[in-house]
Amino acid sequence: MEKNYENQIIIDGLEYCNWNREQFEDLRNGGITAVHATLVYWENTEESFKRIEEWKKRFKENKDILIHAKTSEDILEAKKNNKVAILFGFQNSAPIANDIYLVEKFFLEGLRFMQLTYNNQTPLGGGCFELKDSGLSRFGKQVIEEMNRLGMIVDLSHAGRQTCLDAINHSNKPVAISHANPKFFHQSIRNIDNDVLIELSKKNGFIGLSLYPYHLKNKGDCSIEDFCLMVKELINLIGVDHIGIGSDLCNNWPDEVVMWMRNGKWSKKIDYGESDSKSPKWPEQPSWFKKGSDLKGLFEAMIKNGIDENQALQIMGTNWYNFLKNHF
Amino acid sequence: MEKNYENQIIIDGLEYCNWNREQFEDLRNGGITAVHATLVYWENTEESFKRIEEWKKRFKENKDILIHAKTSEDILEAKKNNKVAILFGFQNSAPIANDIYLVEKFFLEGLRFMQLTYNNQTPLGGGCFELKDSGLSRFGKQVIEEMNRLGMIVDLSHAGRQTCLDAINHSNKPVAISHANPKFFHQSIRNIDNDVLIELSKKNGFIGLSLYPYHLKNKGDCSIEDFCLMVKELINLIGVDHIGIGSDLCNNWPDEVVMWMRNGKWSKKIDYGESDSKSPKWPEQPSWFKKGSDLKGLFEAMIKNGIDENQALQIMGTNWYNFLKNHF
Repeated sequence: MEKNYENQIIIDGLEYCNWNREQFEDLRNGGITAVHATLVYWENTEESFKRIEEWKKRFKENKDILIHAKTSEDILEAKKNNKVAILFGFQNSAPIANDIYLVEKFFLEGLRFMQLTYNNQTPLGGGCFELKDSGLSRFGKQVIEEMNRLGMIVDLSHAGRQTCLDAINHSNKPVAISHANPKFFHQSIRNIDNDVLIELSKKNGFIGLSLYPYHLKNKGDCSIEDFCLMVKELINLIGVDHIGIGSDLCNNWPDEVVMWMRNGKWSKKIDYGESDSKSPKWPEQPSWFKKGSDLKGLFEAMIKNGIDENQALQIMGTNWYNFLKNHF
Repeated sequence: MEKNYENQIIIDGLEYCNWNREQFEDLRNGGITAVHATLVYWENTEESFKRIEEWKKRFKENKDILIHAKTSEDILEAKKNNKVAILFGFQNSAPIANDIYLVEKFFLEGLRFMQLTYNNQTPLGGGCFELKDSGLSRFGKQVIEEMNRLGMIVDLSHAGRQTCLDAINHSNKPVAISHANPKFFHQSIRNIDNDVLIELSKKNGFIGLSLYPYHLKNKGDCSIEDFCLMVKELINLIGVDHIGIGSDLCNNWPDEVVMWMRNGKWSKKIDYGESDSKSPKWPEQPSWFKKGSDLKGLFEAMIKNGIDENQALQIMGTNWYNFLKNHF
């Protein structure tokens, strides 16, 4: 069979959407094989179990096109049956509070990614918005060991620099930064320094490149050419095998939700995150990436901008697949 | 009226006991006016509200000798009626998780002390057992502002050195280290460096001296003379006004509870804290402090060991009372 976009595994390494049937159909019709979907940011244990129950209902209602992926084989199964595999992830460790036994309880419910921190400090480590990053804490080390044991991916998106470095070294399995860009592309607090990217790749860690406006050069006006140029530079820096996409697509939400993401319940004052306009609104997506299925256009642009077709296909999904297969 | 132990306000700035009628009677008969009682260590929000419900039952069953103190006037009221005033405290911020609105909810239930951390890192700051102390986090700063607004005491026992210094400076009301000793007395991880004690007292902060064996020179074999000598040295260092007692008395618990205090649910491995014998047992109390009412013997020993009677009375309770009155 010809090696083309349609018959390859395509994976988006992070989306946080207000899901409905239309979006699932867009993913399926756009040839997306698997999506790592965010379930929670600031939610506590009980609220997080509720998010899982909501997904169970979604799987039931959309069983003709969705699969809850708990293993890499489930992703192949989705591909074979023209369905979309959903992988569960938490963008914070708030759901486990200070209870290491909850890691396994969530794993048994299908959780396959967990971030140690989300912008702020947690009992596990430092967040990227903190002035001082503690690095990995006593609890953080033990949670990583537990995640390694179970086969849950340590996600370092939104972590502080020192926590990233500590976790890369402490984990005995490769870790991921599921959605961020290199800092050389855009000086966002969320983007990653070259030396951290190099350490990450040395340990076979993974970065999913983000299409969230605040992580892009010129934000929502970022050109697809500039994005592809960044991909080429990154391939030169760390090699192609550790690179995928984690679009950070946040579709179909009212503006309150972007403020929830930034503020949770940790602040009585309003925190605007990286919005320099102090806007309580979602930023405008680049014209060339407004829905999950737009990954195909990005794939085509990569080739047009001089990225080898095989490498572009790796970045579109097979790299993620190989990384995931190493864990579950 | 003559100024003697019996007609003065006597306050123990921290106890964590498995409470029963006998203990309450010991406190009342021993002339103890008020006790700051620990409700939780690692407990989450729901479990912490349950501990409050348990105390409501205790107040009901022992209403002839107990008062739930929510203001400094309640302490005077207890003294007048020969009852014991109980002040609620949390030895950790786990109950508020990442939700600043919970501070007020617990305040309304009578919470008057909260530690930012308990040995380990929390979303608010660093714990004393962490290799790296983040200092006060973004959330930690906001929680202190909220505690200041409400009149809840910031307790820095079990916090890391940098978190102590940051909190002393960030709080616009004096803070407390409710139960610890100076490090010059005994090199415990939990005890406090001179420079931190000086910063604390400069801002009218408070230290409650601990009688927990791991905080004492020669542990359970600590002599009452050595303890009194330490008190005198500390008076020379920071003045008498900032000093009280926070005995850290942990009575009537099975040995599982000391392991719960050390390990919570954060570790699957056993952590023995500062026990060098790797013992999963409660350490032996010094012979001269085995129950709440033993404060009187300590008072007498202070005078015998050359501490001025007025100063000894201040340390036994009036200093704590004046500090508390500044908050509620």
